[in-house]
Amino acid sequence: MAHIRLPEELHGIRGPMAFRPETAKPLNELAEILLHAPNSLTPAERELIATYVSSENDCYFCQTVHGAIAAAHLGGDEELVRCVKVDFNQAGISEKLKTLLVIAGKVQKGGKQVTSTDVDAARAAGATDIEIHDTVLIAAAFCMYNRYVDGLDTWQPHDERLYRERGKKTAKEGYVSMSKEYLPQQTRP
Amino acid sequence: MAHIRLPEELHGIRGPMAFRPETAKPLNELAEILLHAPNSLTPAERELIATYVSSENDCYFCQTVHGAIAAAHLGGDEELVRCVKVDFNQAGISEKLKTLLVIAGKVQKGGKQVTSTDVDAARAAGATDIEIHDTVLIAAAFCMYNRYVDGLDTWQPHDERLYRERGKKTAKEGYVSMSKEYLPQQTRP
Repeated sequence: MAHIRLPEELHGIRGPMAFRPETAKPLNELAEILLHAPNSLTPAERELIATYVSSENDCYFCQTVHGAIAAAHLGGDEELVRCVKVDFNQAGISEKLKTLLVIAGKVQKGGKQVTSTDVDAARAAGATDIEIHDTVLIAAAFCMYNRYVDGLDTWQPHDERLYRERGKKTAKEGYVSMSKEYLPQQTRP
Repeated sequence: MAHIRLPEELHGIRGPMAFRPETAKPLNELAEILLHAPNSLTPAERELIATYVSSENDCYFCQTVHGAIAAAHLGGDEELVRCVKVDFNQAGISEKLKTLLVIAGKVQKGGKQVTSTDVDAARAAGATDIEIHDTVLIAAAFCMYNRYVDGLDTWQPHDERLYRERGKKTAKEGYVSMSKEYLPQQTRP
């Protein structure tokens, strides 16, 4: 039982999004721009940042669904996703992404933890200002999404098949289409 | 000097919002719905929740500007804002708002910290499900805004007059109008 009466049969963030479609709209638009829209960081790289931060925040729903989206973008490579969560320095990812994950991990602990040295290292590995900006905002945004999902004690079934299916769908369609699922029946186009 | 090259003369979150107007749009829309749009919680109550969480996250810009917005809604009562930050149990606010601030404080530490007892106490003091939902999301959202502002090491001048002026303007106009300030000159209506 969640802390408030949420629509049934929707897991994780989908329950409160259906409960409050007014806030679901900007929350999904933000995710769309940060994770799915064209960017010099690939969707897989951005989903790995989201997954790593959600893992550090110990949010089962977010780390599992965004891990599944990342894996879908990576041709099903769930082992790489697991490695990034456990020890990204040993994972088969670019040096640039490793430096961005350092920044994301600092943001997860608190914004003031990020140092000029962290940013210089990312820049030396080829990161642009917009990539550094987006990394900070993805990490900050998942400190929000994770707290939203866990702070309401949402329903988070532990069946990885559900997350794999959702992961494939979101990897393909993105986040904005999700908002439409929450419109009241009578206003659906 | 911020960690990335931000537009000059804009303080706090306004720098990165001008740098990346695509993400500024949903960030401002979310703030508008949570803090300014009609709600059974007053704008002052919602701004006090935002100010308290920003204070707990030690974000100078956010606690000062949202404190100024709260004060503007309260006829200039800066002392009440200070009391809420220092010890809200001693502040001249409703019992309901005190129970919601307990929930917001737990969300700031981590979503899993919120207990059924906290939620029952809010409900006993008259809080509705949507007020509990919005409190959790305001607190979660400020864990994002605070990290965004500090994670990029934005410029945060310590001149309270600037914040008072901005507070009065935002209390009156809300957040969505802010997004328009960040449109490239050639696309401004």
